[in-house]
Amino acid sequence: MRILGIDPGFAITGYSIVDYIGNKFSLITSGAITTKAGVSFPLRLTKIFDDLNMIIEEYKPDAISVEELFFNQNTKTAIQVAEARGVVLIVGCKRNIATFEYTPLQIKQAVVGYGRADKTQVQRMIKTILNIDNLPKLDDTTDSIAAAICHAHSCKFAEKL
Amino acid sequence: MRILGIDPGFAITGYSIVDYIGNKFSLITSGAITTKAGVSFPLRLTKIFDDLNMIIEEYKPDAISVEELFFNQNTKTAIQVAEARGVVLIVGCKRNIATFEYTPLQIKQAVVGYGRADKTQVQRMIKTILNIDNLPKLDDTTDSIAAAICHAHSCKFAEKL
Repeated sequence: MRILGIDPGFAITGYSIVDYIGNKFSLITSGAITTKAGVSFPLRLTKIFDDLNMIIEEYKPDAISVEELFFNQNTKTAIQVAEARGVVLIVGCKRNIATFEYTPLQIKQAVVGYGRADKTQVQRMIKTILNIDNLPKLDDTTDSIAAAICHAHSCKFAEKL
Repeated sequence: MRILGIDPGFAITGYSIVDYIGNKFSLITSGAITTKAGVSFPLRLTKIFDDLNMIIEEYKPDAISVEELFFNQNTKTAIQVAEARGVVLIVGCKRNIATFEYTPLQIKQAVVGYGRADKTQVQRMIKTILNIDNLPKLDDTTDSIAAAICHAHSCKFAEKL
């Protein structure tokens, strides 16, 4: 199974393509879609939509796994991140690829084994699981890998779209 | 100028097509896109995207005017409305139709003349402006008309995309 993991944001959307075959994970590619602050917000969202479509076109994932929004104190930022999430959630449906959402707690639970793991523990476990020496430069990209791993671990329990 | 007004929501998205020609407004059509609670959230967002695309295809608006999110106490609802807004914001860009956002305050200011107008005053003014006897059944639809009127009144000040 090939999974597209996404950590949505309006400035940085982390993404990764993870293969999960016979209990073995491989990181195929990963990166980030970035949008510029000076550009109008609808155009920034459209860039996220278009870039994700290109990634799906190239890597043809079987499923998409998206981290749910952890609501923080900054209301304006949270709303803009949610607007980006909305865009991310429809990309798969437009191509009949099932899209799943997981909370940060579920993702930590799936990757490390318990939901209150800290960032360093999650990152260490991702390196072990993928058998890689270095993580991506951006935390958003690493978080998208965690979402993809979470879906692989959870997919037998997940509700199909 | 033909304006598509939208009041975004994940359960009900109000929309209206308003023509503004020679200082005169005409309501061409209006309605609501509704999505069912039992359906997966990504599919609900996709329905909003698809239905708006059909409306744009049929009525070919020159601009889209969207009400900005007024943040309320219910965080989960606000996030889901924002996710729907994100989808609404990209529909125009995908077709090179400029999309504008207005706060509830700006909309009341533009429709009634002052930003603290109550709902009844806004509704009465919309009936007068459009020269109609009855408002749409859903408040969401009426709110989308207010957004469209606001853009017509404000467009010379609005930043073009």
